[in-house]
Amino acid sequence: MRYLITVEYFGKAFNGWQTQKEVISVQQTLEEVLSALLREKISITGSGRTDAGVHALAQKAHFDTNSTIPMNKIPLAVNTMLPEDIRITGIEEKAADFHAQYSAKRKTYLYKFYVSRTSSPIRRHTHAQILPPLDFKKMKDAAKILVGAHDFKAFCASGSLVKTTTRTLYRLELWQQGDEIFMEAEGNGFLYNMVRIIAGTLVYAGKSKLSEEDIRQALETGDRKKAGKTFPASGLYLKDVVYE
Amino acid sequence: MRYLITVEYFGKAFNGWQTQKEVISVQQTLEEVLSALLREKISITGSGRTDAGVHALAQKAHFDTNSTIPMNKIPLAVNTMLPEDIRITGIEEKAADFHAQYSAKRKTYLYKFYVSRTSSPIRRHTHAQILPPLDFKKMKDAAKILVGAHDFKAFCASGSLVKTTTRTLYRLELWQQGDEIFMEAEGNGFLYNMVRIIAGTLVYAGKSKLSEEDIRQALETGDRKKAGKTFPASGLYLKDVVYE
Repeated sequence: MRYLITVEYFGKAFNGWQTQKEVISVQQTLEEVLSALLREKISITGSGRTDAGVHALAQKAHFDTNSTIPMNKIPLAVNTMLPEDIRITGIEEKAADFHAQYSAKRKTYLYKFYVSRTSSPIRRHTHAQILPPLDFKKMKDAAKILVGAHDFKAFCASGSLVKTTTRTLYRLELWQQGDEIFMEAEGNGFLYNMVRIIAGTLVYAGKSKLSEEDIRQALETGDRKKAGKTFPASGLYLKDVVYE
Repeated sequence: MRYLITVEYFGKAFNGWQTQKEVISVQQTLEEVLSALLREKISITGSGRTDAGVHALAQKAHFDTNSTIPMNKIPLAVNTMLPEDIRITGIEEKAADFHAQYSAKRKTYLYKFYVSRTSSPIRRHTHAQILPPLDFKKMKDAAKILVGAHDFKAFCASGSLVKTTTRTLYRLELWQQGDEIFMEAEGNGFLYNMVRIIAGTLVYAGKSKLSEEDIRQALETGDRKKAGKTFPASGLYLKDVVYE
């Protein structure tokens, strides 16, 4: 049986999604608990990696099991065994050819900022700080340039091995609430660090460190140095993965 | 010179505001850094204690110093020396007879809940969970009963030594946003654990574990057992202290 699970986790507690030697990953933590519960070695495949410190409101992952434990019993049983920084929030059955990564059609990321001269202790693991002054309208105008199908090579951390750096950004929305700014990005896929570089680029636009022309240039040339800096993991949330 | 500082802190990182032996308090952390910067022994007096895990958006505290360092230089200098879980966000000069606790006229607390069957890893240090079902209107109706001048003895942790348990609650507001509920309480003073017991009482009302009549009885009899349980520190924020 192939199951797809939805997982929420607090990024601060883990060294990212993917299992690596000598650090605690979300994937490994889930595999250990699922293996203990289902009494067989379980391997899970996520919709993609998240870096150390990045949060997930709804990461998706699939695994196969021969266990006859009723599906709806699994989340509750697993959650009582998991550390409080991870929870399975949903489960569904999938066909044997379903794949959490390759079957994904769209992903949504949320990024949380706050604008303040002083760093905020309460928000240091959940938001990223922007120092004032900031022109919010300039951020919104810059976001419009990035929406659509583009070669996002300039918005990708170097060293990443992908066949193509072209991606479609369906939506890149920004809104304000009090001293906070939220950015939501929905696309057919995201390159390594792409959302964090978009976050940094929009902040640089809002601080007049990058003009609209600079951002167009970044898209055209694919030059990483022409985009903004990679903003912190602490503000980033994987919000949704859609399959069709 | 007497100064009043505004302090934000992330409650999870400390064993409360007040200095105690062998645990790290906010007060002690601030005193050590201020003493080092101002080169004299500094004692600070807060507007009141906050328990372990309780956050402060704007705690207030006063201290005296003979230092000639310009007032406006103090927050930035102190903040670079403080752990990231505390920040001084404001400073002002006060008369010698001003007192952070006794001169306080009103305080505002904020409490953050979320309603979900599964506990939320991302919100575990910043909110308290309410299990569904919940009738939000019943919570709001219960809140109305508590507004005004009352003997809040039933809403006070036992063992607290105060002259009178009568307090005036000027405002007790509730609002929803997505799966979250916010409660804001403004009063002329609060008893030990009072906001957390009010939070628990309103949740019990929303879950029909307490009727409006039960809550009136709690106020009339002063019987702690007639109010709801003390809700977790993680959801509580000291939001403002007003002086006149």
